[in-house]
Amino acid sequence: MIPIVRADGAAEWELLASLRRRSGEVDRKVTAAVTEIIDAVRERGDDAVREYTVKFDGRCPETFEVNRDEINDALTLAEPEFVNAMLSAMENIAAFHNRQKQQSFIDTQENGVIMGQRVRGLSRVGLYVPGGTAAYPSSVLMNCIPARIAGVGEIVMVTPPQKDGTANPDILAAAAVAGVDRVFLMGGAQAVAALAYGTDSVPRVDKIVGPGNIYVATAKRLLYGTVDIDMIAGPSEILIAADDTANPVYLAADMMSQAEHDVLASSVLLTTSERVAEETAAELERQVERLSRAGIIRKSLADYGMIIVCRCEAEMIALANELAPEHMEIMTANPLEYIGKIDNVGSLFLGQHSPEPLGDYFAGPNHVLPTSGTARFFSPLGVDSFLKRSSFLYYTREALAEAQVPIVRLADREGLTAHANSIKVRFPDVW
Amino acid sequence: MIPIVRADGAAEWELLASLRRRSGEVDRKVTAAVTEIIDAVRERGDDAVREYTVKFDGRCPETFEVNRDEINDALTLAEPEFVNAMLSAMENIAAFHNRQKQQSFIDTQENGVIMGQRVRGLSRVGLYVPGGTAAYPSSVLMNCIPARIAGVGEIVMVTPPQKDGTANPDILAAAAVAGVDRVFLMGGAQAVAALAYGTDSVPRVDKIVGPGNIYVATAKRLLYGTVDIDMIAGPSEILIAADDTANPVYLAADMMSQAEHDVLASSVLLTTSERVAEETAAELERQVERLSRAGIIRKSLADYGMIIVCRCEAEMIALANELAPEHMEIMTANPLEYIGKIDNVGSLFLGQHSPEPLGDYFAGPNHVLPTSGTARFFSPLGVDSFLKRSSFLYYTREALAEAQVPIVRLADREGLTAHANSIKVRFPDVW
Repeated sequence: MIPIVRADGAAEWELLASLRRRSGEVDRKVTAAVTEIIDAVRERGDDAVREYTVKFDGRCPETFEVNRDEINDALTLAEPEFVNAMLSAMENIAAFHNRQKQQSFIDTQENGVIMGQRVRGLSRVGLYVPGGTAAYPSSVLMNCIPARIAGVGEIVMVTPPQKDGTANPDILAAAAVAGVDRVFLMGGAQAVAALAYGTDSVPRVDKIVGPGNIYVATAKRLLYGTVDIDMIAGPSEILIAADDTANPVYLAADMMSQAEHDVLASSVLLTTSERVAEETAAELERQVERLSRAGIIRKSLADYGMIIVCRCEAEMIALANELAPEHMEIMTANPLEYIGKIDNVGSLFLGQHSPEPLGDYFAGPNHVLPTSGTARFFSPLGVDSFLKRSSFLYYTREALAEAQVPIVRLADREGLTAHANSIKVRFPDVW
Repeated sequence: MIPIVRADGAAEWELLASLRRRSGEVDRKVTAAVTEIIDAVRERGDDAVREYTVKFDGRCPETFEVNRDEINDALTLAEPEFVNAMLSAMENIAAFHNRQKQQSFIDTQENGVIMGQRVRGLSRVGLYVPGGTAAYPSSVLMNCIPARIAGVGEIVMVTPPQKDGTANPDILAAAAVAGVDRVFLMGGAQAVAALAYGTDSVPRVDKIVGPGNIYVATAKRLLYGTVDIDMIAGPSEILIAADDTANPVYLAADMMSQAEHDVLASSVLLTTSERVAEETAAELERQVERLSRAGIIRKSLADYGMIIVCRCEAEMIALANELAPEHMEIMTANPLEYIGKIDNVGSLFLGQHSPEPLGDYFAGPNHVLPTSGTARFFSPLGVDSFLKRSSFLYYTREALAEAQVPIVRLADREGLTAHANSIKVRFPDVW
C-alpha cells in the first residue's frame, strides 16, 4: 500500500516534487466559469445568486438568511454530548488564541512627538462552510474563535443548503456556540462573490475565510484585493519523524487520520529505524480494515504516502524543513528539542501522546494551517489574521523644525520637489 | 485645476468609485506576457533572465550580482549629507518598528501539557527596487529595516541596470546602510520570477516585497503562493480633513506632495470651511508653478483630486472611512481625537506640523501602505510582514486520557473514523 524507500536516493525528492504539484496549477476552465459567476453576482446581486443556487444546489431557499430562532434551536436540539465536546474545545481554543492578541502602542518624546500603531479587529468577516460530508463543526470553531478574539464586529457565515433546502444542523449548532452573527444559505463561487461585493441580502465583508472546493478557492483567489482572504488551502499533509522509540501502532493510526481526508492527502513517515518502517507498513494494512474511509486511505497512501528510512536525525530534520509540512508529529526520545529545529511547519505535535486529531479538534492551536510547502512563509490562521494595523504620527512645530533638513535632503535626492515643498512652506524663513 | 464640490451630492461618490477603478482591472495582454516570462525563467533560469534583460534593458551585465566592494564604495562615495539623512531616518524607522516585534510564547499546565507559538523571521526575502526615476533610497530603508528587525536571514535585492549597465549608486548606498546582503542587476517580471524559483545566480526567496511597474506587480500576483508577496500597490493617495483652523498654504503643499508621484495619484481635501476650500484651490495654483513636476501635479489634481465641502466633522469622518485612504492628514483643532475615529486608513498624520513627507522619509512608521481602499483589511508593511508563526503542542498520556472522549465524539460526528482511531489505539482498554 505504501512505498518504503531509503533517504538520499531520488525517490524522496520525486515525492516532494509531486506533493508540490498537487495544489499548483490554476484550471483555466474553472477560472472562466468562476469569473462569469463573479461578474454576474457583482452586476445582478441576489438574482444571480438565486439562479446559480438553483443550478448547482437544485433549489433555492425562499430567503437566504437563516432565522435566528432556527440557529438557536439547532443548539437546543443537538445532542448534549456533542455540544459539550464543542464547548470544551472552544475553551481550549480561546485560551490559546487569547495569547496571540496584539496591543496598540504609543510612543512619546519630550519634544511633544506622539506616534504609534492602532490595532483593531476587522469590521466584518465572511466564513465559508462547505456542504455535504465536508461540513465540519470544528472548522466553524477554528475560524470564528480567533475572529471573535480579534474583535471582529460581525461574522457572517455562508453555507450551501442541504438537499431538502435547509441548513446542516451540526453547522448551525457550531455557529451558535462560536458566536456567528448571521447565516446565509448559499454556496460555491456565487456565495463568495456575494460576500465580496455585498448584495441586497448579504452584507459586504472585509475578509473571507474557510475551506471550499475548487470553485470556492478560485473565487477567493480572483477576489483577493477586492477583499482579503485567508489562504488558498491545498490538500492536507502529515509528516512524522520517528526513531526506534516510536510505536508503529500509533504511527500507522496517525498517518491514516490524515490520509482519510482526501485521495490527494499526503502522509509521510521519516524514521531512523528500519524496524519501525516495516512494522508501521504492516500496521497500516492491519488497521485500515476497520476504518470507514479505507478506500480513500489506501489510494492516498499509495499515491502520496511514503516511508523514508533516514540515516540520522539531521537527515530527518533537513527533509522536514524542505517539505515544510502542514502538520508534523515528532515521535522520538527527545521530542521537545524539535521546537527549535523544525523551521518550516504549520503545527508541531510532539511526543507519543500528541496525535494530530488532538490539534484538529481540541487542544487549542488552530487547525487552519499552510499547506503544499507554504509553511516556508505562511502562518497558521490566528488572531493576527483578523486584525488590521494603522500608524499615527503627531509632530510639533519644534520637532518638525529639527527634522526639516534631512527630509528636504532626501526628497531632493529623489527628485520629489513637491515633497520638499511641503516642509519648506512651513518654514519660509529658513528656505 | 481641482473641482470643489459639496458633500452629499453625487460628485464625491463618483470620485470614490473612480478611485477604486484606478487600480482594479487585470490586463490580459500583460498577464499573458508575464506568464510567458515566468515560465521561461522557471524552465531556463539565468539564460532566460539574460535574454529578457537584453530585450528590455538594452544590455545585460556580465554577472548579475553586484560585487560587495562596489556596494561599499557606493556608500563611501555618496555625499555625506545624503548618508547622514539616511542614517537619521534609519534610527527613527528602527525605533518605531522595534515596537512591533512579536515574541514566541509558551503555555504550560500542571498535567504536563506544553503548547505555544514560535515566531521567527523568514529565511530569505527578495526586495524589488525599480530603476529610472522611481529608484527611491527611502523605499530600500522602509522595506529592509522591518525585515532586519524580524530577523530575516538574508535580504536579496534586485534592481534593473541603468543604461550604462551599472547599478544606481544611491540605491547601492541605501542598500549598504540598510544591510542588504546581496544585490542583483535585473529587473521586470524576469527578476521577480528569478527570486520566486531561484536560478544558478539568484537564490530562491520566501517573500518578495517592493514596488514596481505593471509587469512587476503582475508577476508578483501570479507567483503569490509559490512565494509570499507584500501587497499589490495601487496609485498613491492622500486625504486631508481640515476645519477652519487649517492653513491653506500647508493644505495645498501637502496635496501636491502626493499628486507629484503619478498622474493617477489622488489628493482629496475634506473641509468644513468654505473659505479654506477656496483659499486652498487658489494656493494650489500659486504653488504649483515652482514645482518641477507641475505637469503631473496638474493632471493628477484635475483627474483624481477634489475639494469636498462637508457640513460637519462627522461627515468628514464617514467619508474618510468609506474611502479608506492610504495617507490621511488631520488639520483640525483637535487632531489627536481622530486616532480612534478613522477606522480605515494606512497612516494618519495629525496636526499642522505632520506633513505626509515627514512619514515618507523620516519619522518612523512605514511608508509602504495599503492603497485603493484596501486599508479596510490590509495593514502597513511592518515587522509582522517578515515573520512566520508556527504552533507546537505536547501532551502527556494523562492529559490525552482526559481529552479523549470529546475528541472521539467530535471526530465521529464529522464521520472521520480514522481521526477517532488515532485516539482509540492509544487507549485500547477504553475503546
